[in-house]
Amino acid sequence: MKKLFLALLAVCFFCLPALAAQKTNNIKLPAPQLTKGKTIMQALSERQSVRDWSKKDLDTQTLANLVWAATGVNRPNGKRTNATAMDLREIDIYVCNKNGAYFYNAKKHMLEFITKESCGEDKAPVIIFITAKAKEDATYPYIDAGIVSENIYLFASGMGLATVARGTMPMDKAKIAKLLKLGADTKLILNHPVGYAQSEKKDSKKEAKK
Amino acid sequence: MKKLFLALLAVCFFCLPALAAQKTNNIKLPAPQLTKGKTIMQALSERQSVRDWSKKDLDTQTLANLVWAATGVNRPNGKRTNATAMDLREIDIYVCNKNGAYFYNAKKHMLEFITKESCGEDKAPVIIFITAKAKEDATYPYIDAGIVSENIYLFASGMGLATVARGTMPMDKAKIAKLLKLGADTKLILNHPVGYAQSEKKDSKKEAKK
Repeated sequence: MKKLFLALLAVCFFCLPALAAQKTNNIKLPAPQLTKGKTIMQALSERQSVRDWSKKDLDTQTLANLVWAATGVNRPNGKRTNATAMDLREIDIYVCNKNGAYFYNAKKHMLEFITKESCGEDKAPVIIFITAKAKEDATYPYIDAGIVSENIYLFASGMGLATVARGTMPMDKAKIAKLLKLGADTKLILNHPVGYAQSEKKDSKKEAKK
Repeated sequence: MKKLFLALLAVCFFCLPALAAQKTNNIKLPAPQLTKGKTIMQALSERQSVRDWSKKDLDTQTLANLVWAATGVNRPNGKRTNATAMDLREIDIYVCNKNGAYFYNAKKHMLEFITKESCGEDKAPVIIFITAKAKEDATYPYIDAGIVSENIYLFASGMGLATVARGTMPMDKAKIAKLLKLGADTKLILNHPVGYAQSEKKDSKKEAKK
């Protein structure tokens, strides 16, 4: 009985505060700014891949706009900014920054803390990982990942940010999958570093391949 | 010698006028209107799939804006509104309307006439077919097709048009591939009917699945 009491006490002392701390690391995001940005035709005309970022961080409002643009809820029925095959909504995004890794809970428009570990060094202050929960041989998750990727691209060009879609991951794919706690049925398809471009001059020198 | 002369005469009489007629059916498009449309955040917030269109046709300027938005050249170096893996530019789009089928030549910003045959009955005045020239087992063409698909979606929501991405084709896939003269190495991945929505009232009744 005494042992049980001590065990419970240990739980109270060590685990509960840890859980509480973890909870406080969730980030409740401000509502997206739905009228912001350049026009769609301007965003399309400035769409490009940029691989060189300044050290300037994204503020919470910009991060909120970004994740919402990628796969946020845009209708009262829960439907999203991104189309998915047969409305499967198999796509999820994860955000990595200097504080660690987060799952974007689109329903709650919230970043759920996963870990303080780094997802790999990158020049950009934020990396978005695009994943899909789907059968191994399905092709539609790739289409749907491309759809989310272009949301990020056009959000970036329309809001003065810089990004690139990459199939190559910033570190070993299996390590990232483990770090993000992805299930065995979840594919890690693309990643998008997002930040501010170095400068216009440097941009034109280091022009994107895409 | 006489036979050769008659053969050449036959070419002059039958083939050349036919070729000339075909050439006149190409459509040189007006430049895209690069400042038009709602803001990127508004376009994202109104992004939806619509499957019911009015009979109103797209004028040539709107068609020009649409195909350019999908995969037009947006930089002097020939790069496009849509990213492609390793800058492969393996994606092509085709346009079908009441006049037949056309290949969008992005470099020339021109619709090249293919055939007067119909690509299948549809409620929308225009169908865009998204194709990719790639190896059978490659997954990136699906990502890249999704990217073009989202360009079309956001162009539509940003410019007051209605569309849906469909894997199911308006008629037999092999027939469409033959009609569009697709090579054996070219995948027909998605199609996007595009037009004006019936009306707001009907839209909300027949709400998109995506």
